[in-house]
Amino acid sequence: MSYIPLEEHLPGVTGLLEYDQEAAAPIRELTQILLRGESTLSEGERELIATVVSNGNQCRFCTAAHSAAADIFLGNNETSKKVKENIVTAPVSDKMKSLLTIALMVRENGKCVTQDVIDTARLRGATDIEIHDTVLIAALFCLYNRYVDGLATFTPTDPEFYTGLGERLKNHGYNRLQQGYDHLKNHKPFS
Amino acid sequence: MSYIPLEEHLPGVTGLLEYDQEAAAPIRELTQILLRGESTLSEGERELIATVVSNGNQCRFCTAAHSAAADIFLGNNETSKKVKENIVTAPVSDKMKSLLTIALMVRENGKCVTQDVIDTARLRGATDIEIHDTVLIAALFCLYNRYVDGLATFTPTDPEFYTGLGERLKNHGYNRLQQGYDHLKNHKPFS
Repeated sequence: MSYIPLEEHLPGVTGLLEYDQEAAAPIRELTQILLRGESTLSEGERELIATVVSNGNQCRFCTAAHSAAADIFLGNNETSKKVKENIVTAPVSDKMKSLLTIALMVRENGKCVTQDVIDTARLRGATDIEIHDTVLIAALFCLYNRYVDGLATFTPTDPEFYTGLGERLKNHGYNRLQQGYDHLKNHKPFS
Repeated sequence: MSYIPLEEHLPGVTGLLEYDQEAAAPIRELTQILLRGESTLSEGERELIATVVSNGNQCRFCTAAHSAAADIFLGNNETSKKVKENIVTAPVSDKMKSLLTIALMVRENGKCVTQDVIDTARLRGATDIEIHDTVLIAALFCLYNRYVDGLATFTPTDPEFYTGLGERLKNHGYNRLQQGYDHLKNHKPFS
């Protein structure tokens, strides 16, 4: 049971974004800018940053949702799984290994980021903007994970739910759709 | 030295909000809604939530800035100091003690919030919306603190700087002012 009354058919962050639509608007906008805006990092790479941070924070809803989105963008189910296991051996570019390492340092505390890891990221081709965006995406998911778990929202266990949500995040991004979640009303796990 | 090139006269988050103005707009808007929007929590109380979370994350810039803002709203320099030392004995209402406790749990990890602390907050008069807003403000400052420290922004040491910033946050809130920081250009610590 969530700590505040949320619509039963809206699990995880989806119920929160309906509960406080005024605050939700800039949260959605910021996410759309960072994860879907113009960038030299692909959407799949940015979803991987969201995934490793959510996984580090043990937020099951966000981890499953953004793993699903990353899988769809990247066209495979292995990369997200492997970056969660071990960034160093995961099948991503050296630059991405550095950026994901920075993201995990930010997750712990901003002060954990070192000049060394920044220098290595640069040697591997990371730009100032990519470093900036990695830090801000990691920080944003530290917000999301706490919002979702701090109010004890419902976490579906059916993998199909996250595949559907991942498709939605790929096809529609983070902007609010009119009645965007109405199809979930008939979804068994939270009907 | 910050990890990315920021304007020298803009310390802490102020340089970041100029560096990426597209992302800054929804961050500012969310902060304005949560800390200055209509609420049964006073502006001073909401600044105290920002203060204890930033202090817990050891983010010196945000702690000093929001302590200064809280002091100005509350009309004294003691309350912010005492909530940073010990919430239980600080001169705030019992409801605020519960909400600040929830904020510190959220800071650690959303999963740290317990049904017990929520129940106690309710017994002390906290509403659903106050609990929601406390969690989201705490989560937002987990974003800010990581953004500020994750990119190693400059932290002024002159207390006068924060008094000035606190006045600005009271009088103008979190919206962007055209040339709002230009007066800082002549401020010694970062000229």
